[in-house]
Amino acid sequence: MEIVDYRKVPATAPLPGVTNRVLIGPDDGAQNFIMRVFEIASGHTSPDHAHFWEHEIFILAGKGVARDQDGKETPIGEGTAVFIPGGENHCLINRGGDVLRFICLIPTGVK
Amino acid sequence: MEIVDYRKVPATAPLPGVTNRVLIGPDDGAQNFIMRVFEIASGHTSPDHAHFWEHEIFILAGKGVARDQDGKETPIGEGTAVFIPGGENHCLINRGGDVLRFICLIPTGVK
Repeated sequence: MEIVDYRKVPATAPLPGVTNRVLIGPDDGAQNFIMRVFEIASGHTSPDHAHFWEHEIFILAGKGVARDQDGKETPIGEGTAVFIPGGENHCLINRGGDVLRFICLIPTGVK
Repeated sequence: MEIVDYRKVPATAPLPGVTNRVLIGPDDGAQNFIMRVFEIASGHTSPDHAHFWEHEIFILAGKGVARDQDGKETPIGEGTAVFIPGGENHCLINRGGDVLRFICLIPTGVK
């Protein structure tokens, strides 16, 4: 059993205004899926992109929108779960004044 | 893209003092892993058991302990991630006065 507080996990900054912490991954023995916590600063966005693997997301704090492949925006906030199937264009945009924090899981073997 | 607030997902009660909501699963097209939200009432516990699949857990609210296969108890609370490898005995116990709420992910094809 591995137990960690996400605040103690070192963060990377893959984009301006975006940080990523890998909480549970292959280094811990996770064979099937990877748990990460992202923070998006006010006014920033995750990349607007698509890839072959899925996302399973849970919003921990903040307010924003999830934009789908048709450009449709749906409000998200604390307690919202978002499933993005593989191949679908998507991004999460922080439209609030505070950080938008969420868990995002992906299968192992991808980025 | 599927978006849902966990509070609007019907809950089952697999044990006294324990509820389970499946937020993202095979019915949504999730092929690799399943996102659930559990709530454990004050003084209650998840089953003390082991199974061949892993858990990836993130605590959303409340206070308690995670007990490992050796009986060692580690405090958990908001922001704690817990990885339980397949085959390890484990349980989560609510030792606080409020609900212990957490996300628990498992691979598809198991319970």
